[in-house]
Amino acid sequence: MTTPRNRRWLLAERPTGLVEDKNFRWVEEPLPEIKSDGEILVRNLYLSCDPTQRGWMARDTYLPAVAIGEVMRSGAVGRVEQSRSPDYAVGDLVVGTFGWQDYVVVQTRASGMRPMKIPTGVPIPLALSALGLTGLTAYFGLLEIGQPKSGETVVVSGAAGATGSIVGQIARIKGCRAVGIAGGKDKCGWLVREAKFDAAIDYKSEDVSARLRELCPNGIDIYFDNVGGDILDAALARLAMRGRVVLCGAISQYNATELPPGPKNYMNLLLKRGRMEGFIILDYLERAGEAVQALAGWVAKGQIVDRVDIQEGLENAPRTLRRLFLGENIGKQLLKVAD
Amino acid sequence: MTTPRNRRWLLAERPTGLVEDKNFRWVEEPLPEIKSDGEILVRNLYLSCDPTQRGWMARDTYLPAVAIGEVMRSGAVGRVEQSRSPDYAVGDLVVGTFGWQDYVVVQTRASGMRPMKIPTGVPIPLALSALGLTGLTAYFGLLEIGQPKSGETVVVSGAAGATGSIVGQIARIKGCRAVGIAGGKDKCGWLVREAKFDAAIDYKSEDVSARLRELCPNGIDIYFDNVGGDILDAALARLAMRGRVVLCGAISQYNATELPPGPKNYMNLLLKRGRMEGFIILDYLERAGEAVQALAGWVAKGQIVDRVDIQEGLENAPRTLRRLFLGENIGKQLLKVAD
Repeated sequence: MTTPRNRRWLLAERPTGLVEDKNFRWVEEPLPEIKSDGEILVRNLYLSCDPTQRGWMARDTYLPAVAIGEVMRSGAVGRVEQSRSPDYAVGDLVVGTFGWQDYVVVQTRASGMRPMKIPTGVPIPLALSALGLTGLTAYFGLLEIGQPKSGETVVVSGAAGATGSIVGQIARIKGCRAVGIAGGKDKCGWLVREAKFDAAIDYKSEDVSARLRELCPNGIDIYFDNVGGDILDAALARLAMRGRVVLCGAISQYNATELPPGPKNYMNLLLKRGRMEGFIILDYLERAGEAVQALAGWVAKGQIVDRVDIQEGLENAPRTLRRLFLGENIGKQLLKVAD
Repeated sequence: MTTPRNRRWLLAERPTGLVEDKNFRWVEEPLPEIKSDGEILVRNLYLSCDPTQRGWMARDTYLPAVAIGEVMRSGAVGRVEQSRSPDYAVGDLVVGTFGWQDYVVVQTRASGMRPMKIPTGVPIPLALSALGLTGLTAYFGLLEIGQPKSGETVVVSGAAGATGSIVGQIARIKGCRAVGIAGGKDKCGWLVREAKFDAAIDYKSEDVSARLRELCPNGIDIYFDNVGGDILDAALARLAMRGRVVLCGAISQYNATELPPGPKNYMNLLLKRGRMEGFIILDYLERAGEAVQALAGWVAKGQIVDRVDIQEGLENAPRTLRRLFLGENIGKQLLKVAD
């Protein structure tokens, strides 16, 4: 009988360009041990892969950068294996920032985000996608920053990604037209057929500006941006009067080694009395309950289709994260690391 | 005795780069005649020179472009010389969009902006600067879009220009620190000495980013942008948490023959939960009364110094407009065309 080891991916260097395996170092260590009251030992089951992790590897952003030699930071779902907290029982499923590793000891009394228990009956992947930070990002970004009104036209980039696909579906629930921009026929087909977007634009084979003109004859009331770059510019050029640009991400820019040029059409914000505004989901966690309740209701009624792309094996963490930047995922990218 | 002629500058071509005399055509015509009830004949006294006029020459913006062959559009103060309107008496001083010409017939019953009478005792230049659209632009842009709170740091570019200089002074009235960015020692000296800005940065001789770090140790709460380009980027990089960027203009860009790159630091709006928003003063005209009353009070109490730069002679209209783009004016640029 072999003693289980804790396999971990540590950050070895800051990335240049696309995330590479060599940015990380694989180590196998003894299991971490609980030492104090309030601590729990968690066995990771699924890791969340998110574009923002590229930023965490590179520099201080809205969170400090991951330190070199530190385990790669990541959201995850795990199972409590040992507990010295009255609030967590062995076998509980919990969501937290557990990192790229098999096991982690978490001090549940520490300030900051406590591991959140997943209610019975909720499929694990859902707790990281529509009912996790992804769903909250879509919910608060669209509703709080975008302020959609029924009848408006909402355009979403990265629409077949985790956040984008939920944004478009919430837009339709709120009575808006949803137009998604995604890369490739498969993604665009899925958006219209399954996620019920009103229309999709394939930026790989279509002229985005021309298609936006066609599909948004009265302009774009809300542009929810996950990608930045030329697509942001095309959307700005098509902004409706008093249009809103919700800045959620800029995945087209994250691998650039120098800061790329900004949106040259930004002055359309002036001509159209528009607003471009960013947000960070961590600011809305106190209101998570309200959002999860709404999202769970929509998922239960089939109004939100939650698609996940599950890869397997902790050893594949770097290449699974890379899938996001190669546009290989449809929906939420997860990595299953244990049953 | 010679019959007076109406000297006019017509738009001859769309400009390329800096405004040139050859973009216009000088004509001398008989005086226009009143033909219908409601019309008045106005003799222009002062023309308003504004960066936005470069845009009117070039393309449709928030107003249709000036047509080729049409008189160049411009705000102005004039005197009523003849009247078939009960609302206007001969001798009344009025503000309106009277164009680059000596005389104009205005139908005062037409929809759109009616000529506004200047109250007795108000110096004519003031009616085009602090108490005109310039003052309104500063007032509504800063207060409505910027939403300043006492103790915040407000940075203004084009600070020695007509709008910028008033923005900084309103910021101080509202209890904010005002930092101006302007070109040259004269302008910066004037900002601090006369307009009572807390500090000024000379972008021609100083490192704007380094000076913003020094002068705004807690970041920029409101950046009021009149210039765009590198200075906008430097300000975005220094944005405080929940900072606001008020887009009023982008004079550094107006003469570009191709759309220049946009602000590469725009994603700081996301990291800092910031907002960048544009506005057009024409949307606020219904509330002009409130603003003019406040501005007049501040001017009367000496809390706003209203500086005007007066050139003379209708024949100098193109070169006077050009002064704005060469940074030759301090304060509001006017052209006196008659006594």
